[in-house]
Amino acid sequence: MALDLTSLPRPSRDDATVGTMVRGLVGSEILRIAAEIRELVSKGTQVCNLTVGDFSPKEFPIPDGLRDQIGTALQAGETNYPPSDGVLELRQAVQRFYERALGLKYPLEGIVIAGGARPIIYATYRAVLDPGDVVVYPVPSWNNNHYAHMLGAKSVVVTTDAASGFMPTLAQLEPHLSTARLLCLCSPLNPTGTMVDAGALRAICERIVEENRAREGRGQKPLILMYDHIYWVLSFGGTKHVTPVELVPGIAPYTVFVDGISKAFAATGVRVGWGVGAPTLISRMRDVLGHVGAWAPKAEQVATARYLDDTKASEAFLTTMRASVDARLEALHRGFQRMKDAGLPVRAIAPQGAIYLSVQFDLVGRDGLTTNDAIRKRLLEKARFAVVPFQAFGLAEDTGWFRLSVGATSVAEIEQALPRVEATVREILAGK
Amino acid sequence: MALDLTSLPRPSRDDATVGTMVRGLVGSEILRIAAEIRELVSKGTQVCNLTVGDFSPKEFPIPDGLRDQIGTALQAGETNYPPSDGVLELRQAVQRFYERALGLKYPLEGIVIAGGARPIIYATYRAVLDPGDVVVYPVPSWNNNHYAHMLGAKSVVVTTDAASGFMPTLAQLEPHLSTARLLCLCSPLNPTGTMVDAGALRAICERIVEENRAREGRGQKPLILMYDHIYWVLSFGGTKHVTPVELVPGIAPYTVFVDGISKAFAATGVRVGWGVGAPTLISRMRDVLGHVGAWAPKAEQVATARYLDDTKASEAFLTTMRASVDARLEALHRGFQRMKDAGLPVRAIAPQGAIYLSVQFDLVGRDGLTTNDAIRKRLLEKARFAVVPFQAFGLAEDTGWFRLSVGATSVAEIEQALPRVEATVREILAGK
Repeated sequence: MALDLTSLPRPSRDDATVGTMVRGLVGSEILRIAAEIRELVSKGTQVCNLTVGDFSPKEFPIPDGLRDQIGTALQAGETNYPPSDGVLELRQAVQRFYERALGLKYPLEGIVIAGGARPIIYATYRAVLDPGDVVVYPVPSWNNNHYAHMLGAKSVVVTTDAASGFMPTLAQLEPHLSTARLLCLCSPLNPTGTMVDAGALRAICERIVEENRAREGRGQKPLILMYDHIYWVLSFGGTKHVTPVELVPGIAPYTVFVDGISKAFAATGVRVGWGVGAPTLISRMRDVLGHVGAWAPKAEQVATARYLDDTKASEAFLTTMRASVDARLEALHRGFQRMKDAGLPVRAIAPQGAIYLSVQFDLVGRDGLTTNDAIRKRLLEKARFAVVPFQAFGLAEDTGWFRLSVGATSVAEIEQALPRVEATVREILAGK
Repeated sequence: MALDLTSLPRPSRDDATVGTMVRGLVGSEILRIAAEIRELVSKGTQVCNLTVGDFSPKEFPIPDGLRDQIGTALQAGETNYPPSDGVLELRQAVQRFYERALGLKYPLEGIVIAGGARPIIYATYRAVLDPGDVVVYPVPSWNNNHYAHMLGAKSVVVTTDAASGFMPTLAQLEPHLSTARLLCLCSPLNPTGTMVDAGALRAICERIVEENRAREGRGQKPLILMYDHIYWVLSFGGTKHVTPVELVPGIAPYTVFVDGISKAFAATGVRVGWGVGAPTLISRMRDVLGHVGAWAPKAEQVATARYLDDTKASEAFLTTMRASVDARLEALHRGFQRMKDAGLPVRAIAPQGAIYLSVQFDLVGRDGLTTNDAIRKRLLEKARFAVVPFQAFGLAEDTGWFRLSVGATSVAEIEQALPRVEATVREILAGK
């Protein structure tokens, strides 16, 4: 007879027995929405689910070549500990990949492998920030608030808008740069699917270099730039991805790139990411990651190395991948454009990158809807169309903007859902 | 032409531009030793390498069934995000495993999956401790010093000795329990290969329960017990593994188990671990692990679930695994016993669990050897016998004790090395 422990006390939000930091960690808004959707689906309701920043393996399987290489590596016994900075073969493959595809030749000491991109973000925050240090980031953006909380850092939030594609400008950042230790940028941006403009990024980087020159003279710690470009191989419509370092080489000593296979190769569950940047930072991130143990599995590391080096296969996959993502984004964009042309108060930003589309349902104040979340609920219940409000990405204002993620849907599902969305929007307008 | 960044500044230990915590993170002593060995091996020297707490896949492959299930899960498209607390199927399999093999029936809310056991340790520290809180742990033990440093916690170290099998007694812990927030125990113990005695553990647990009853009355935070038993399925010579919760059920609300497949199934590079314990703690650990992103790869999670449920295959594997580890440990133990019987100043503790043997080379003060590390170097250079001094596990005193790890060697290699060790010990004695 086993000892029955099933009635052990369940957690409560305000449980004072745990540490202060975890007591203040707030749960993900997206997971709360996901639970609502699961309940609907469990009742047999079909939902066009555009909420998860993930892929349905049915719609987006990982590359055959990558999967086969994992099998080969497992057969070859690649099952023991990887080195704490990653398998050398993969670090070399990433080095070649960055030289070939981004025109940036990093030393091996500037490359660390981790179990996904999240650990790289966490390690960047952990390596740079002391409690009370200032981290600056734009909103909407992904999870910077949580990382800042975990570090006990002071968040300075810069609210962006549709006019600038939800990218911050130097003018918006300027008031905060002289006190900041870390600036977090992301392009293509989760949640908006927009990309930073080369001119705007260059101006920001030049300012950081100037700032750091002044700080060096004063013996102060430099301002570090975390550039999350995990979606960079997914860009559409002629928008070109740019990097801080190619635009302003002098920023290299202060820059960390966040990257990996999770999004590019639809491999979020395979857990292979990497950080590339200044060796002074990367070495500390390696120390953190080693103790946390947030390592990528070894067979997957070896497999990723071989797959990245198979440029013919990986480039062919990416061509198909981009076309598949773009077809879904374009289907959505066309649909909302048609509604807009028909005079409905909706608009979408043309897809640029990632797997996201920014859509505004300008319906706050209509038919009793006072918040983005109320609009979200109505769309879910009436149109079976599940989206995430920008509030989940730190935006305070109820401006009617939403993230639509296409990794788990087909073009057909989207086409079927759009008339339901239009009907629901018309009902809301009629209700007012 | 790529931008050449290969001459970016390299890290220096005292680089003041990074955060305070990472500047104080010290590198692993074992990795430093590993580098010395690599250099010898690269010159063609054959070394009997007993330093790594890992397996050679040639000597210890992962179970065929586990490897095949990973392949099957990959083929089935288990490649997208796992839930942040782990794949339900695996949490249920762990639940059944603990009920079946340990007699402990935990609720699902008390089980969280992570990318190995290290993330579970980190998450426990992170969920429990505030900066300045007291963590108590015995030395020698594995890496508690690093985790305490990362949390800014106050370490209280209890030095154990061979007489108690390097396990702490209640009498040794007692002076520190009233101020402690976290007590870290490990059995079978890395680095010693010894196991805690049921009576000693029961006394410690009863004291914790009593302490927490008193704290509850005073409105103080409880003392939490982290019980790392990652090696628990590997025990030898009739020593029985015991758990705090089976001995003293009242400790369940305060206990977290650290566990996973890394050691049991020779799968350190597969990255699947789990924490089992009080839901109040496990839920916070899940929050931490989710943001850190230290998740186990999804296909490996699904495969581990199926493999654990295949009790016939997994038990057969463990029987072979135990016999293989034990054969190596016994070969070493017999060898040192022979030397001791021959009057040499060496002794070994009979193997009980894990993949380690504690061996004392009582040679400090002989032939100019003043430290454990000097003995280690002599054994490496003269006997090509690579071992790790207990200093790497936090022991301050040069008492001549070493960890010998057998995961990467064969019985034949051990048999060949022992005469070299004996010759070296005799040389040292002759040298004095």
